[in-house]
Amino acid sequence: MSRVFLLGADTFRQQREWPVPDSVGIVTTESVTIDRELRLESGRRLGPITIAFERYGRLNEGRDNTILVTHAWTGDAHAAGRHSADDRKPGWWDNLIGPGKVLDTDRYHIICSNVIGSCKGSTGPTSINPATGRPYRLSFPVVMVRDMVRAQKMLLEHLEIDTLVSVIGGSMGAMQALEWALLYPEMVRSIIPIAGTGRTSPMAIALNALARQAIYNDPLWKKGNYKPEHPPSNGFALARAVGHISFLSEASMELKFGRRFAARDGLFDFFGQFEVERYLEYNGNSFPARFDCNSFLYLAKALDLYDVAWGSAGMAEALSPVSCPSLWFAFSSDWLYPPKQTEDVVAVLRQLGKPVQYHLIQSDYGHDSFLVEPEKFTAHVVDFLARLAT
Amino acid sequence: MSRVFLLGADTFRQQREWPVPDSVGIVTTESVTIDRELRLESGRRLGPITIAFERYGRLNEGRDNTILVTHAWTGDAHAAGRHSADDRKPGWWDNLIGPGKVLDTDRYHIICSNVIGSCKGSTGPTSINPATGRPYRLSFPVVMVRDMVRAQKMLLEHLEIDTLVSVIGGSMGAMQALEWALLYPEMVRSIIPIAGTGRTSPMAIALNALARQAIYNDPLWKKGNYKPEHPPSNGFALARAVGHISFLSEASMELKFGRRFAARDGLFDFFGQFEVERYLEYNGNSFPARFDCNSFLYLAKALDLYDVAWGSAGMAEALSPVSCPSLWFAFSSDWLYPPKQTEDVVAVLRQLGKPVQYHLIQSDYGHDSFLVEPEKFTAHVVDFLARLAT
Repeated sequence: MSRVFLLGADTFRQQREWPVPDSVGIVTTESVTIDRELRLESGRRLGPITIAFERYGRLNEGRDNTILVTHAWTGDAHAAGRHSADDRKPGWWDNLIGPGKVLDTDRYHIICSNVIGSCKGSTGPTSINPATGRPYRLSFPVVMVRDMVRAQKMLLEHLEIDTLVSVIGGSMGAMQALEWALLYPEMVRSIIPIAGTGRTSPMAIALNALARQAIYNDPLWKKGNYKPEHPPSNGFALARAVGHISFLSEASMELKFGRRFAARDGLFDFFGQFEVERYLEYNGNSFPARFDCNSFLYLAKALDLYDVAWGSAGMAEALSPVSCPSLWFAFSSDWLYPPKQTEDVVAVLRQLGKPVQYHLIQSDYGHDSFLVEPEKFTAHVVDFLARLAT
Repeated sequence: MSRVFLLGADTFRQQREWPVPDSVGIVTTESVTIDRELRLESGRRLGPITIAFERYGRLNEGRDNTILVTHAWTGDAHAAGRHSADDRKPGWWDNLIGPGKVLDTDRYHIICSNVIGSCKGSTGPTSINPATGRPYRLSFPVVMVRDMVRAQKMLLEHLEIDTLVSVIGGSMGAMQALEWALLYPEMVRSIIPIAGTGRTSPMAIALNALARQAIYNDPLWKKGNYKPEHPPSNGFALARAVGHISFLSEASMELKFGRRFAARDGLFDFFGQFEVERYLEYNGNSFPARFDCNSFLYLAKALDLYDVAWGSAGMAEALSPVSCPSLWFAFSSDWLYPPKQTEDVVAVLRQLGKPVQYHLIQSDYGHDSFLVEPEKFTAHVVDFLARLAT
């Protein structure tokens, strides 16, 4: 497996030749529109529902070798392979998905779909509202993680798949994996939630509040009615920088930047920058061109609202339907969803007598560890999936 | 000692009757203008220098009973007492300073002065530049913590005080205390740095970068040339909210807010807020009326530039002039300046054979613990000062 040298999902690069034997090769994002309404947790209805997805490997004759990969906040359906031979970078979890890899496409049929509320092909705030013929923007309903999972279920029904070997994902992807085990216990044979939480903490909500306010403060935002060609770039870049900080860790910043001052600046220039500041600015500025600001806000809202006990008397009641084995990972330096939050869920599952494996992974890369240092936990995944098969 | 119930320096309230026997009573902020130039670390010169300060207790005949209290980022000279009988709240460390209190005004002469670069009476970006007759704004020179300490030294010379029992302060105040021990070892008999750091980490710099960008993004900022009556309130409030988050902790937010949703909002309202978000917004919005935005930026810069080894080959060389005993406190839940950063300085002082006491205080109140739970460390301060006297 290739090693990743740079920090963060967005700076993800792989140092290797193309084509390579362990790649799924050239892939295409597919799209399906399901002409049904989804009743959301809020009580509102959304439909028809379009879902963008990618598939790697082959569905077997028994139609029972599918693993669903669930993505994080600003992720998409493009988890592996490249869209063209000269594509600059592969899908976001390409180091895990492919022939002979952890999620082995010689054996499994892998599906990754874009969540509803996003802007990467699935129904979201940039979609046309059939009732008005215009984009939803802020008339889009607030969606919860549970709604995203219900939409994924509609996709699997459409594909005539009624059993999943596993649902695996990091961060918001971990929330989706857990919701799958609650909502459709008869369909899932296992879940692998990574760097997740059972309920979003006030600290995480507060960080999202900063991101929101940064966007609201931008005069170009216009309460969500910005022109796509003139997005609120300054505010959105700042919002992204808030996220970046929460995905990194004290140690990863120390390793990568230390206190180095940007070379061209004088230490006593009022506008002089340390390297860490320049990095945040650069990465923030590249973001508004490739993600919709309203979608970003709706997904932040879904994260804030996440509480596995939503609609239940408590976590124990909420988790009681879980029947499959689950494999959990948390990262020592993750301060956005600290290990304690995963451990709280794991403890309740154990009290309920559910089969649970939990690993606290030592990593300096904070919340982003699930993208940056997968080699630290993938051996457990391989082992877990192998036992499941027997 | 009265107990403080609310979080954060800004929400600081004391539940007690007025007048109370342990108060220093009605106090006045004094001001002195010293007609000399200060040569700054940057090489630039600043002068004349005005310094705002307050004094509590009496200077003894030997002129050797003074304790200097140093304030944090947005603090001021008003550390104790009230400015009038109907003053709504006392000085920021009133629970420590007064007759019979930890910093006992029956015994000690206490001085607290506003740092240069601030807007609370000392020379800073809002002051009139004598060369132009107009406010400095961004023509104000970048100052370092060391420059603040040199200005304090000018004040003490003016007051004809050449020895200090101690220099005590939290956060940026801790940095000043340490610099005193390096720059003027012949003058200080002890220092008490609380919740400090030997060098600002890239994480802390990154958080300040968010605050800066929030202000720069506000069209009313006008590169520092905003009208005082029309400050960049939206951006500045957001910048303050970034600070608030870094001063609190996971645990303190959990205790104070949990996941409670603001009562008037629907959970599925796009603009609905959790209590933690409303709190940040409220506290941020009250801030621009009482602090100058450019001063905030200059002090953030001073924090970013802080490195005790500045100008030395390393921390050991930098700390070698220290001759007095030092008493250090760090707080378990402080993630802005984590205990490790204090421990790094303490370790070097010990290696150098300096007399050092260090206490890691268990507190859930994050960086703000030095303001919110002083009763957890003040017994050590009383003991330390008593031993010093004998």
